[in-house]
Amino acid sequence: MNQRVVLASYPEGWVTESNFRIETAPIPKPAEGEVVVKNLWLSLDPYMRGRMSQQKSYVKGVEIGEVMTGETAGEVVESKHPKFKPGDKATAPSGWQLYWCGKGELLTKVDATKAPLSYFLGCLGMPGRTAYFGMKDICQPKPGETVVVSAASGAVGSVVGQLAKAWGCRAVGIAGGKAKCDYVVKELGFDACIDYKAGNLFDNLKAACPKGVDALFENVGGEILDTVLRLMNFRGRITLCGLISDYNAKEPYGLKNFRAILVNRLKVQGMIVFDWLERYPEANQALLQLVTSGKLKTRESVVEGLENAPKGLIGLLKGENFGKQLVRLA
Amino acid sequence: MNQRVVLASYPEGWVTESNFRIETAPIPKPAEGEVVVKNLWLSLDPYMRGRMSQQKSYVKGVEIGEVMTGETAGEVVESKHPKFKPGDKATAPSGWQLYWCGKGELLTKVDATKAPLSYFLGCLGMPGRTAYFGMKDICQPKPGETVVVSAASGAVGSVVGQLAKAWGCRAVGIAGGKAKCDYVVKELGFDACIDYKAGNLFDNLKAACPKGVDALFENVGGEILDTVLRLMNFRGRITLCGLISDYNAKEPYGLKNFRAILVNRLKVQGMIVFDWLERYPEANQALLQLVTSGKLKTRESVVEGLENAPKGLIGLLKGENFGKQLVRLA
Repeated sequence: MNQRVVLASYPEGWVTESNFRIETAPIPKPAEGEVVVKNLWLSLDPYMRGRMSQQKSYVKGVEIGEVMTGETAGEVVESKHPKFKPGDKATAPSGWQLYWCGKGELLTKVDATKAPLSYFLGCLGMPGRTAYFGMKDICQPKPGETVVVSAASGAVGSVVGQLAKAWGCRAVGIAGGKAKCDYVVKELGFDACIDYKAGNLFDNLKAACPKGVDALFENVGGEILDTVLRLMNFRGRITLCGLISDYNAKEPYGLKNFRAILVNRLKVQGMIVFDWLERYPEANQALLQLVTSGKLKTRESVVEGLENAPKGLIGLLKGENFGKQLVRLA
Repeated sequence: MNQRVVLASYPEGWVTESNFRIETAPIPKPAEGEVVVKNLWLSLDPYMRGRMSQQKSYVKGVEIGEVMTGETAGEVVESKHPKFKPGDKATAPSGWQLYWCGKGELLTKVDATKAPLSYFLGCLGMPGRTAYFGMKDICQPKPGETVVVSAASGAVGSVVGQLAKAWGCRAVGIAGGKAKCDYVVKELGFDACIDYKAGNLFDNLKAACPKGVDALFENVGGEILDTVLRLMNFRGRITLCGLISDYNAKEPYGLKNFRAILVNRLKVQGMIVFDWLERYPEANQALLQLVTSGKLKTRESVVEGLENAPKGLIGLLKGENFGKQLVRLA
């Protein structure tokens, strides 16, 4: 049987497990041109909070009773599409379920001999591509510049900082807790990582960025963004990729240092990786090369079983994950 | 004798007349390569508030006892520079004083037979060029799009909206009071102008922008910016030119709708016109052509005499001016 997690209710403030419901259904049969995938991994990502809402966002939210949105990696088990055969590994826009059936055109075949399959949901997947295009096209860091990234140990942030290093920049992360900060510096090779939970964020960041901040890759927002704004250099660039600190807040944070954008003639751009769809192969190739040459490291947080996916998402939204958050489905 | 206004003290919150002091001095004598200009007009501009502060801004603030920064238009009375002769009309970085003496390279000769001399401080000067480059390079409006500009009856805003119309867009202004709004629509030809003092800014703006807002030229900030952010379309552009509502506030406004930048993938850029210095001739030519063909109208608010310049600036910062604020010096 197929199992799937559907949205039971819209959360107010923090997501709770009661916002989800698990259902069973028969394993679907493919029509002509369709493929059935047995999912092995489900990716959990901060954007999912936005889909659990009727508020205007990138795309329409999930309806009550609908399967939660999400990307999976798995194995083709049945194919009526000429480009896929059983045993092929692929990522799919499955949502939170064990089996997916859909048009072959929506599947992305991946070469799981070059890297673990789960990486294609993380540093070699959507989060990695987000980091790549946000850095390359918006942050546009030049060698010697200082790049700051918030949620630095996360799926996107960890790639951002390692790209900064690979491109000759000073990489400074912001993360929550000593363990994450140690990991970011010692394992990922950032020049520094500031623990925002330790207090004195401004002073600590200032000390870690003696030449100011030329580019900010923002995943968090709120007080963290407000603080980094005070350190931005003339003509700095800000990639606005996420505002996770706001996603569960009932009232949005009131940003006080917006004026820095005027005074320092900053460029700020909101991004979503879909806008670079045509250039995915460029990012995939660059990221795979960095992974296989050992220059791009990753860490995964895994929860076991589809039934624990809600718990995994709640933990992710609270910053309890450590690296890319995944659900092992089989 | 020369007269000049110097900064007597830094204001806290609103500027008062006691922050200024008037001084007299001999009329300066030019050295080799220098020119003496007798100023006829002094321009008053919102950026001057930023100079009356030790806070970090575009450029260093005015020191206590220094002549207030400002641009003037006047007539050459003595020249030891080969490119200038007595009787030439020019704009100069004089500051608030009756006579200026400095290197000829710092003077800009203007053709006052084509338009009134004072226009070269307004729609044909810095404010006009600010509108031109902020629109052309940052707002980048396409025909049929909706452009919103705050402080719409002001020196910059009035040009922004008329450029929007000249370039085939819907132009919607925001201004304070019925008289200004009537002027913006009936004399300047905007499609609509919303009175932010009348309440219901969001509903009124929404009605005036039935297709949403594609480009925002922001001069005011605070609640006005926060409101327009809610109406921005997907891939909208925001030129951040000024935040006059914050300049006199002791605490900056907390911007609540920053998230719109992420959700709608907006581009926001802080600007100062000096960054386009090399392209001034392009703007000057385009603006002069619009003025001489009757497509770019302007209105001036004039205070009489250098001694009233502080009053003029205070009024400008409170939005009491109507169009370009000038001081007639002679």
